[in-house]
Amino acid sequence: MNRREPLGIAVIGTGRMGADHVRRIDRVISGARVAAVVDVDEERAKTVAAGIDGCTAHTDADEAMASPDVDAVLIASSGPAHEAALLGAFARDLPVLCEKPLTPDAASALRVMEAEQALGHRRVQVGFMRRYDTEYVRLKALLGTGQLGRPLMLHNRHRNVASPSFFTSSMLISDSVAHEVDVTRWLLGHEITAVTVLRPTPSSGAPEGLRDPQFVVLETDGGALSDVEIFVNCGFGYQVQAEAVCERGTARIGDGHQLVTNMAGRWGGTIAQDWTERFAQAYDDEVQAWVDATRRGEVTGPGTWDGYAAAAVCEAGVRALEQGGRVEVELADRPPLYA
Amino acid sequence: MNRREPLGIAVIGTGRMGADHVRRIDRVISGARVAAVVDVDEERAKTVAAGIDGCTAHTDADEAMASPDVDAVLIASSGPAHEAALLGAFARDLPVLCEKPLTPDAASALRVMEAEQALGHRRVQVGFMRRYDTEYVRLKALLGTGQLGRPLMLHNRHRNVASPSFFTSSMLISDSVAHEVDVTRWLLGHEITAVTVLRPTPSSGAPEGLRDPQFVVLETDGGALSDVEIFVNCGFGYQVQAEAVCERGTARIGDGHQLVTNMAGRWGGTIAQDWTERFAQAYDDEVQAWVDATRRGEVTGPGTWDGYAAAAVCEAGVRALEQGGRVEVELADRPPLYA
Amino acid sequence: MNRREPLGIAVIGTGRMGADHVRRIDRVISGARVAAVVDVDEERAKTVAAGIDGCTAHTDADEAMASPDVDAVLIASSGPAHEAALLGAFARDLPVLCEKPLTPDAASALRVMEAEQALGHRRVQVGFMRRYDTEYVRLKALLGTGQLGRPLMLHNRHRNVASPSFFTSSMLISDSVAHEVDVTRWLLGHEITAVTVLRPTPSSGAPEGLRDPQFVVLETDGGALSDVEIFVNCGFGYQVQAEAVCERGTARIGDGHQLVTNMAGRWGGTIAQDWTERFAQAYDDEVQAWVDATRRGEVTGPGTWDGYAAAAVCEAGVRALEQGGRVEVELADRPPLYA
Amino acid sequence: MNRREPLGIAVIGTGRMGADHVRRIDRVISGARVAAVVDVDEERAKTVAAGIDGCTAHTDADEAMASPDVDAVLIASSGPAHEAALLGAFARDLPVLCEKPLTPDAASALRVMEAEQALGHRRVQVGFMRRYDTEYVRLKALLGTGQLGRPLMLHNRHRNVASPSFFTSSMLISDSVAHEVDVTRWLLGHEITAVTVLRPTPSSGAPEGLRDPQFVVLETDGGALSDVEIFVNCGFGYQVQAEAVCERGTARIGDGHQLVTNMAGRWGGTIAQDWTERFAQAYDDEVQAWVDATRRGEVTGPGTWDGYAAAAVCEAGVRALEQGGRVEVELADRPPLYA
Repeated sequence: MNRREPLGIAVIGTGRMGADHVRRIDRVISGARVAAVVDVDEERAKTVAAGIDGCTAHTDADEAMASPDVDAVLIASSGPAHEAALLGAFARDLPVLCEKPLTPDAASALRVMEAEQALGHRRVQVGFMRRYDTEYVRLKALLGTGQLGRPLMLHNRHRNVASPSFFTSSMLISDSVAHEVDVTRWLLGHEITAVTVLRPTPSSGAPEGLRDPQFVVLETDGGALSDVEIFVNCGFGYQVQAEAVCERGTARIGDGHQLVTNMAGRWGGTIAQDWTERFAQAYDDEVQAWVDATRRGEVTGPGTWDGYAAAAVCEAGVRALEQGGRVEVELADRPPLYA
Repeated sequence: MNRREPLGIAVIGTGRMGADHVRRIDRVISGARVAAVVDVDEERAKTVAAGIDGCTAHTDADEAMASPDVDAVLIASSGPAHEAALLGAFARDLPVLCEKPLTPDAASALRVMEAEQALGHRRVQVGFMRRYDTEYVRLKALLGTGQLGRPLMLHNRHRNVASPSFFTSSMLISDSVAHEVDVTRWLLGHEITAVTVLRPTPSSGAPEGLRDPQFVVLETDGGALSDVEIFVNCGFGYQVQAEAVCERGTARIGDGHQLVTNMAGRWGGTIAQDWTERFAQAYDDEVQAWVDATRRGEVTGPGTWDGYAAAAVCEAGVRALEQGGRVEVELADRPPLYA
Repeated sequence: MNRREPLGIAVIGTGRMGADHVRRIDRVISGARVAAVVDVDEERAKTVAAGIDGCTAHTDADEAMASPDVDAVLIASSGPAHEAALLGAFARDLPVLCEKPLTPDAASALRVMEAEQALGHRRVQVGFMRRYDTEYVRLKALLGTGQLGRPLMLHNRHRNVASPSFFTSSMLISDSVAHEVDVTRWLLGHEITAVTVLRPTPSSGAPEGLRDPQFVVLETDGGALSDVEIFVNCGFGYQVQAEAVCERGTARIGDGHQLVTNMAGRWGGTIAQDWTERFAQAYDDEVQAWVDATRRGEVTGPGTWDGYAAAAVCEAGVRALEQGGRVEVELADRPPLYA
Repeated sequence: MNRREPLGIAVIGTGRMGADHVRRIDRVISGARVAAVVDVDEERAKTVAAGIDGCTAHTDADEAMASPDVDAVLIASSGPAHEAALLGAFARDLPVLCEKPLTPDAASALRVMEAEQALGHRRVQVGFMRRYDTEYVRLKALLGTGQLGRPLMLHNRHRNVASPSFFTSSMLISDSVAHEVDVTRWLLGHEITAVTVLRPTPSSGAPEGLRDPQFVVLETDGGALSDVEIFVNCGFGYQVQAEAVCERGTARIGDGHQLVTNMAGRWGGTIAQDWTERFAQAYDDEVQAWVDATRRGEVTGPGTWDGYAAAAVCEAGVRALEQGGRVEVELADRPPLYA
């Protein structure tokens, strides 16, 4: 059973990512609340905090973490600031969700790892959010069943409409392919042993001097290959695709479909077996919309008139079924309340 | 701004649907809690309430609604019990989310509508949850843009693996097609004026005597047609599809794809334009998983070792980019804490 | 074994359809030649005949059919002219391929049927060409296997970009839905017993006064339903789709895919099992292109240089496989003959 | 205008591939006939020739090519025999369609190229049949329009159910990837400058000792990359896919769809604009089936009864359109001739 009180979270960093996490915890997440926000820009921290009951604003992460209202920490500041924030959280033994990258380089990551080991227990979840994406979760589950046999290769595509102005050629690896590095390790359960980077002539759509696209091949200690097309100025959309090639079949995600497999002479996917699977999201959103509207003192969505009209049409339909043929629907006048 | 206190909800009916709503409000929904549950079966009500802090169990809906902890009511009892529950909620002027059907027939629905009018304001949201399904929402939005022109026809498919033992031929209309009745009214913004039901030879997979499948044609006051294949013993899966045929194109949902259109010589769909759109669900689930684990006193998901390994691989990758060719990854030994 | 001599065909009618059949017999079909063409427009007949060795031009069908070079007749004149041409062919006991419709109405079709019976053997193939479309052929074959069980319903879509200026509301039935009438009879093996036509408000994209689209429901003596959306001014493309709904699954064609089924919890299609299946069309077109070029005294397609370059790259590839890593390709200079 | 006489072709080699070409020329191809077949196995040659009017059988290719009935040569013998056959055809200045590979290695291919240059004109088409596959042809055409911009990368998949017993690791390159080598050169219009082969742990489904799958990266003189997954024991099917990644979009073939593109925020494909495009194959097959049946003295396909039944149903349909509602179909009894 969950503790009754919502979890009080300090969000460190209120830039684009941090602010989005604040909104998420405040409006979407069940069982949590934003207890504190931290930003070096005091005005920004205050503006973000102002919209949330009981949320304090800070410029100092330690001060925020010291608050008795704070039970856990979400780190969304810039990469170089992560190490200090993590060590601060460890000092108070607070659980942490740390946006990726954990830290910008392997040496600092090792230091964080040593500090956590000194603590004696794990405290950190790293923000590799693809592990929570419905399509990746299905792919992982399918690989886990063994139906397709052992994975031999993983083909990945990672495409962005356009790169931000500060993007460098090495950031295609450290910022973008970093996701495929984690996906490869997670899906295959292997460590990566070698990296090859191939560099086709850059696209004329990429900024001058940026090596975009690149083609990266990862080798693993399990003997698998994982290739990655990284193309951050493809122009047409944001697209993340993965195809696992296994001994007896393949499985692909990210392609405007659900998960699609090739196996035993057939391509295709699965069909939901009942409404709880097909419409789970609809029920969640329906009830959330009702709760949100009710808390604002409003009524939205389909109302009594819609319930009545459906009943009247169904009555006519049942008569049509029984009699055969066509039956006209009798409908009362629509009252002004439902105009 | 939302009120700070979570909304206290009384859930009336704790059968399959009601129990699922209790779980949803307790675990998924932000800003609400289950304050009371009601069931004629006292044991069932107590069992459901036992798992939730501060939730009381009742056999009488009025008693539950009288509680000062109850701010709103979710009605998930059987259809014939809805009218009394709705009138009881009106008596206390409580907001209601009422599962479909509003009531089992048009006459009782009219009585509810009159009672709500007497109240002078709308209090009821009816549980036509398809209006909250991502695919239907996109279809509605696309129709609203006018890109495809005026809708002329709607083709609907509604297929269940197997019908429950109590299902009758008329329930294919009143229980199943009821959803398409609402979808048709909502998507087109028309009222339905006539219903025709065609009855092919029943499937040998349907229970003896059940007229399954049926083919229903709805006519609207806007001159559109909406046809519905209802087939509740199709055997292969649960499938809900809709295709709007408009003056300049068509749009289809429910087909293992996202929304697919035909227009101007092309079929296909849209590609996300950035990661906030593509991975919104992943971020929500990531943070919810972290909050849930933290409240249970656990750490799950990718951890510090994963953050370190990604940093080490990316460092090798950046060297491979700079030098060209293949670079081996140097990885520390994995500490027992991360085994 | 086939007779050695090609079949001499008289093509009656050299409008758009007839001229296309002349081209087809002359250039595509194996074992046949155009021996005579007939058109009431003498100039048109002569122009068409001029391009083909040994082809005579006529304004009178009987004269053409009397030629000793004519072994068979293809009727592609206007519908009202079919009856006389068919009776003329019967008089000479010639085999006939008659474009649809056989004749414009049931009474004249009955007369043709009586004349053929008097002959004592079948002589006519009617031009319902969908029975030869790869996708329809696959659908028919799948239904024949019984895997999906008995067909219960057929959903058909028939969409044209725009209707010709002479098109009337009843031609949507007699000219367009005529194809679905045949498809329904052929796929199901049933006769059609009743027809219902529903008429939504016409599209503003249809010519003034034309009832377009229409929605047609066919009932069969096997208890199945076949519904047809006919929309001849849809604007976006030419689209012919069919979905068979059977007792244990569904199968759909015409949708930018190959045949797609829903059955046993999965949607999808089959994968070719070898290259003779996947590339049959490529081999046919390759050899036809070579024969055509050779008869024109030309050489086209991939040549000796391409064969050499492939050999050189493959040699480097085999070395790369054996050594591991990257091997550069050594290529001779490209001789001017292959520029 | 084509010459009237069909082209007399000598087919050298009557193994699986050669016998299939004999069938194709005899039954499918317009304007050609098999004049001679050659095989070192005299019985096989005679058996193949026996089915074809006017076809002679030989064990010596020169003898066959010397026949006045032979206008052109199709070489389908084993690779090592190609050089001699090509030189023999050059000696008589006969046009050649030579199955791939042109010759087994670059040195012999250079000798053939020199002999053809000595002849002073091109005589050889090499059997890279993918250049004639509808999907590859569309992809090439799309790249040629420039809509997608310059191609940067090509991702290829080449999968076979199982490899023949004589297959070696290097044959994955020289026999299978040879196709992608040609496809890459043809689609991009580049020469290949380097080859890298990566070798994941072999599949347990591959024969002992066979390095299957392999992952091959081709670099081109135009700065593009072309990667190839070659997997000849994938078990599930024969699958050949290609995806071109260009500066402004991507295009993919071979995936159970027609050509699918990503561009300008949308994924999808084109819709045919009229029936001549959609049903070209159906018309060709319809007329070929009629010609074949007629030459056998048979009548197949839809007949007079089908033409009549369609006319009767359409008449009822037109009445249903005019009156509204449902009209029953009156059908004569089916005569025994059409049973």
